[in-house]
Amino acid sequence: MYAAEFERIGKRLFAEHLVGGNFGNMSVRVDEGFYIKRTGTYLDVNNEPVFVPLEGPAPVDASSEYRVHREVYKKTRHQAIVHAHPAVAIAASLVLDHIIPEDSEGLMFCPTIPVVGGAPGTDEVARTVSDALAQGKLVIARGHGTFAAGKTLDEAYLFTSLAEHSCRVLFFKKGFE
Amino acid sequence: MYAAEFERIGKRLFAEHLVGGNFGNMSVRVDEGFYIKRTGTYLDVNNEPVFVPLEGPAPVDASSEYRVHREVYKKTRHQAIVHAHPAVAIAASLVLDHIIPEDSEGLMFCPTIPVVGGAPGTDEVARTVSDALAQGKLVIARGHGTFAAGKTLDEAYLFTSLAEHSCRVLFFKKGFE
Amino acid sequence: MYAAEFERIGKRLFAEHLVGGNFGNMSVRVDEGFYIKRTGTYLDVNNEPVFVPLEGPAPVDASSEYRVHREVYKKTRHQAIVHAHPAVAIAASLVLDHIIPEDSEGLMFCPTIPVVGGAPGTDEVARTVSDALAQGKLVIARGHGTFAAGKTLDEAYLFTSLAEHSCRVLFFKKGFE
Amino acid sequence: MYAAEFERIGKRLFAEHLVGGNFGNMSVRVDEGFYIKRTGTYLDVNNEPVFVPLEGPAPVDASSEYRVHREVYKKTRHQAIVHAHPAVAIAASLVLDHIIPEDSEGLMFCPTIPVVGGAPGTDEVARTVSDALAQGKLVIARGHGTFAAGKTLDEAYLFTSLAEHSCRVLFFKKGFE
Repeated sequence: MYAAEFERIGKRLFAEHLVGGNFGNMSVRVDEGFYIKRTGTYLDVNNEPVFVPLEGPAPVDASSEYRVHREVYKKTRHQAIVHAHPAVAIAASLVLDHIIPEDSEGLMFCPTIPVVGGAPGTDEVARTVSDALAQGKLVIARGHGTFAAGKTLDEAYLFTSLAEHSCRVLFFKKGFE
Repeated sequence: MYAAEFERIGKRLFAEHLVGGNFGNMSVRVDEGFYIKRTGTYLDVNNEPVFVPLEGPAPVDASSEYRVHREVYKKTRHQAIVHAHPAVAIAASLVLDHIIPEDSEGLMFCPTIPVVGGAPGTDEVARTVSDALAQGKLVIARGHGTFAAGKTLDEAYLFTSLAEHSCRVLFFKKGFE
Repeated sequence: MYAAEFERIGKRLFAEHLVGGNFGNMSVRVDEGFYIKRTGTYLDVNNEPVFVPLEGPAPVDASSEYRVHREVYKKTRHQAIVHAHPAVAIAASLVLDHIIPEDSEGLMFCPTIPVVGGAPGTDEVARTVSDALAQGKLVIARGHGTFAAGKTLDEAYLFTSLAEHSCRVLFFKKGFE
Repeated sequence: MYAAEFERIGKRLFAEHLVGGNFGNMSVRVDEGFYIKRTGTYLDVNNEPVFVPLEGPAPVDASSEYRVHREVYKKTRHQAIVHAHPAVAIAASLVLDHIIPEDSEGLMFCPTIPVVGGAPGTDEVARTVSDALAQGKLVIARGHGTFAAGKTLDEAYLFTSLAEHSCRVLFFKKGFE
């Protein structure tokens, strides 16, 4: 049911180089749980996502990042999440504790992008990311990637795109100083 | 009527990484007003643009940047405008008061690219951008993005592409010095 | 007759960011002249190229760069030419008198990439580029772009791609030193 | 039989800028030999690969890099190999003896990326690359490109994508220090 929607957003994420390979994942909230990318599938290819309940065991073919998504849906009212691996934002997160955009869109929509710790797939990153997304729509897990949330997959994708755009502007700015 | 034309140019802007997400907008001049992207839509997807009159209230679904477009059409004879968010040009605009291309196309078509102030969506940026476009085809709103104008959407797109190309050349040049 | 072939190569040049907007051009040699891109058209769109004779006036819709192509075909045995605007190669050409690749493909196929002078569209650049292509398959017109030649459009495109690849490697290498 | 599969992976490699022109190659293991890209063909275009036996002469239209692939299949249990030319990884390999990723995926899947010597197409690079792939799934031939191996072409492509991602993160990180 969600396969076409996931593919549409996935193709946009690839075209903007926000994710590569079979990395990244996304989900949408439904009653009692959420639909998330199957592990090992490509975000830009038509694949039916898998249902994960808010409590109890997750299907074995759910993305290994389901813990983060579950914790976000439990703690917040977000309806969709996109997790991507944009290279410049990840690079910035290795150095900075939070990122301060200087482009006007970054300043308007996320004047401070928090960077949090926690290894991929762990309960720790599920906690740090969900804590951050309880207070906003965008966070970077250090060295790992962006988690963006919102009312729809489109909104979560937009914040993902914005995060990388703001970080690219910061990076390129150095070349003109 | 203009949807296919907007989509054709929009896809080119995306392919060249001149815009991402649902950012950027474009318009074409007609009698008594202009057609502009609907707010929240993607430039590279087929969407019918919305008519904005030169005077009086704009439709609620017009791009929030309609003030800039309206002011440009009032002050100049341009027939089309493209606004994009190219990362290197934006980065350069944060540092420089005007950009001096060194590549031969930049030197030929826009030997000085003006950078102007004004927050997105405000009357101020409408004024500064339209003042600049009264004297040329290309301007960068500091930290925000390019506004390029011309006889057609194709021409406005070309100046957008050229702006980023010239800034990329300036950026990469540092690596060889 | 050549439209599909030009479009096929043009799409590859765009996908690799070797050209943007309606910049760049290409031609193939035939008896008594050559077919070249029409001025103002996009390299990645199906457009019938225009015939230019080796001597005498060129059609008004021939690419303004036809002088370079004509001079190359007069001085050399190349059968096809691709002219592109790859940003990193152009940046390098602003600083260096010749480019020495360090990647293994550059070392193998063009161990020295000459950089020559001459403004776009002039007899001077026609002379400097054709002199260089009489001795090889690749040259960069300073600040302007690559001219690559060979037996086929595919070969000329490969040398174009290689030029930018070698320059990108040189650029990125600085970041690891 | 393998043409569609090669094309599918080839298109992904191109879209992520991991290879350009007609560079790069890939192969899959079968009884007594392997199928490899035909020399001179494009990885992203539907072309039937050619069979190369584990011993004895190779067909003249096999990729000139067949020696590396053959040696890998003789020394290891890998079932597929992807060779690509990602610019940042190649740049890093010119400077470093091994690459230590700092992004979380690099740390997890290839905490040290070995760099080995040997000119393209030689027995030496066949030996150094196959030695490295006997102990892992990823290696960079200095100045030349990545060789990634695994159970499937998809897995080899993922390690290729990961190598460039990790190197891009290392490169961009410098801009934030």
